[in-house]
Amino acid sequence: MKQILAEIITIGDEILYGQTLDTNSHWISEALDRRGIKVLRKTTIGDQESEILTAFAEAESRVDLVLITGGLGPTNDDLTKPCLVKFFNTDLVLNEKALSDVAEFFARRGRELTQLNRNQALLPRNCVMIPNRHGTAPGMWFERDNTVFVSMPGVPHEMKHIMEESILPKISAHFKVPALIHKMVKTTGIGESFLADIIKEWEDALPKNIKLAYLPSPGEVKLRLTGLGNDKKALEEGIEREIASLQKLASEYIYGYNGDTLEKVIGELMRNQSKTMAVAESCTGGYLAHMITSVPGSSDYFLGGMVPYSNRMKTELLGIPEELIEEKGAVSEEVVKWMAESVRKKFSADIGLASSGIAGPGGGSAEKPVGTVWIACSCASHTQTKKLQLSLDRNINIKLSSISLLNLLRKQLIQ
Amino acid sequence: MKQILAEIITIGDEILYGQTLDTNSHWISEALDRRGIKVLRKTTIGDQESEILTAFAEAESRVDLVLITGGLGPTNDDLTKPCLVKFFNTDLVLNEKALSDVAEFFARRGRELTQLNRNQALLPRNCVMIPNRHGTAPGMWFERDNTVFVSMPGVPHEMKHIMEESILPKISAHFKVPALIHKMVKTTGIGESFLADIIKEWEDALPKNIKLAYLPSPGEVKLRLTGLGNDKKALEEGIEREIASLQKLASEYIYGYNGDTLEKVIGELMRNQSKTMAVAESCTGGYLAHMITSVPGSSDYFLGGMVPYSNRMKTELLGIPEELIEEKGAVSEEVVKWMAESVRKKFSADIGLASSGIAGPGGGSAEKPVGTVWIACSCASHTQTKKLQLSLDRNINIKLSSISLLNLLRKQLIQ
Repeated sequence: MKQILAEIITIGDEILYGQTLDTNSHWISEALDRRGIKVLRKTTIGDQESEILTAFAEAESRVDLVLITGGLGPTNDDLTKPCLVKFFNTDLVLNEKALSDVAEFFARRGRELTQLNRNQALLPRNCVMIPNRHGTAPGMWFERDNTVFVSMPGVPHEMKHIMEESILPKISAHFKVPALIHKMVKTTGIGESFLADIIKEWEDALPKNIKLAYLPSPGEVKLRLTGLGNDKKALEEGIEREIASLQKLASEYIYGYNGDTLEKVIGELMRNQSKTMAVAESCTGGYLAHMITSVPGSSDYFLGGMVPYSNRMKTELLGIPEELIEEKGAVSEEVVKWMAESVRKKFSADIGLASSGIAGPGGGSAEKPVGTVWIACSCASHTQTKKLQLSLDRNINIKLSSISLLNLLRKQLIQ
Repeated sequence: MKQILAEIITIGDEILYGQTLDTNSHWISEALDRRGIKVLRKTTIGDQESEILTAFAEAESRVDLVLITGGLGPTNDDLTKPCLVKFFNTDLVLNEKALSDVAEFFARRGRELTQLNRNQALLPRNCVMIPNRHGTAPGMWFERDNTVFVSMPGVPHEMKHIMEESILPKISAHFKVPALIHKMVKTTGIGESFLADIIKEWEDALPKNIKLAYLPSPGEVKLRLTGLGNDKKALEEGIEREIASLQKLASEYIYGYNGDTLEKVIGELMRNQSKTMAVAESCTGGYLAHMITSVPGSSDYFLGGMVPYSNRMKTELLGIPEELIEEKGAVSEEVVKWMAESVRKKFSADIGLASSGIAGPGGGSAEKPVGTVWIACSCASHTQTKKLQLSLDRNINIKLSSISLLNLLRKQLIQ
């Protein structure tokens, strides 16, 4: 079966000038890869007509699918649409659906529709309009000879919604692609190289048609198993077999699969066990509550939280004795234990989580350097505590502490 | 003076497959931009000879400077060096300095030098060797006709060290570069198209040597002014003049410049006015506290917060009468006002912020659809409230509500 080739073109001076990190093409690459489409090249160019037209022509000569992001804003520095009109030698026509969409977008916000935004409903005559429920610039789908061009806004969440809701399904329908099965195994609580040591023999013994990739990010390592072939069912069975034996080796680190996130998994466990929780955050400063409440429906099990950032509030809100804080320090096992137990009782929740640490860059000492964090998970029967020694980066420490706390809770819930 | 044009070529399948986020080209772009070198294009290709050679040839035809990262490892899938040999039609010779460097690199780690690593000291005859103290693959500098090619390892910290220690100084010495000045103006509280309407005349009247770009992201629009010319001082003065007149048009939306963030600006204002604050978050679920505490030293002014997610906790923690919640609903001006005032008093803070809304995707109704959010900012003298009508995306709503609250506070602080 013919391998489908794609090129991703990212348009925007801000990327060439190093002011914006291009995460769009990374996200798109992964989405195409999962569908067995090979990304041959990524090109980033500025807001300059000649450059844009050259890139379009070069891509058309190379690949079957060209995905373009950026340059669709309403302002004069956005050149993608005029360039598409030139490239396809066509003209702009008003798209009624696009106009009503953008009108509704503004109506929802109780704002007046400006002429600039009205113009965003003018689309090249030869394109299929792709709705954008999350912004004012619709996506566009073009076909010429054997190449498909797709133009999308550069705002990451708009691009992702458009891709998932419209473009990816259209791509799968338009192109015949070989069976490609991906399964993501999500682990936390272990570093990439340690995990690699544990599963080395299993990895070396993987069948040729199943590929393994390590995808590390702060606080977790994803393992992606990719099976490529023509018998989809056999591939799926093969991958499930491999995951079963992987489970035996690394079960304590595996928290979920594919779209699972630690906070979603926690949510399901909490709901199934009809338990409730509350959090008391010092060094995580609200990020833990944010992770939990980023899950739709989290109000079913999350009663709420406190961020007693100052020591005074630790005493006033959670009744932690000043003497204890003075004697042991706010960053101590005793204080974090008290925080977790106290917040659990205060919210009459089944589980209380707490964090206290030195996120940095300041506040470190010889015996408690930056990155020293205590976390605690308390339930009626007992309270578990853990000391973490993290990095020098404030925001990494905040995220890693929150993830470690959720993982501490997860282990408690699956016992 | 001639504008120096550069292209960045990133080599590696892992980037095209979406397994590795390319941060190298972002870092390089910024480094070149700061030196007034214009990055015309970024290209990412896989470990494939034909692709690499094509990219080299295309770049040579376009630009004065080609910066290449990746594909210099010791293993067979690393093709950059053999491709450079082909491209420059030369051969490999042993570089004694490179050999002693790699030998020393292994000696420091008490490891044996393998033949594979020995081969890394074989370099194209026509290149200048660039030492790499942090890895085993040296950088390479080539000149042909009027184009400079630089090849560097893809490991980010190795690339950065090589760039800072050797390549950037060599580039500045080799090229005469014109002055390029950037200034970023950061706005919030207004959409791209509305801002464009307000400043249209100013934009149209900008001198030719100053370019304007709109960089929108959820909750803010950055305006980037770029000045290019030979007289650096005159450019800086010109840009400052333009910003002064921009200020007159959009002062209420401009919260900062260049590296400023809304939470940093708030932090400085709070510290300068030696005020303290506390937050009560319902729909923002901890994200507001997270934004505030992501700033180092925020404990100077941030006393803490509460996330009374359930109505019961709104009553228990903040003393909001059940009847009020029943009558008006948790998402109402009355309740959010009470939350802000109550949390301010409870923490004996100067300022109290509160949010209550329907983040979605569930929980919407005809009269309070998803995206309906009430925010409040309370100080001793009075409490300000505001109703927001946001999007359908839960996490965007959480972020936009938090940003709007910080902006409400900012306006209060600069009065």
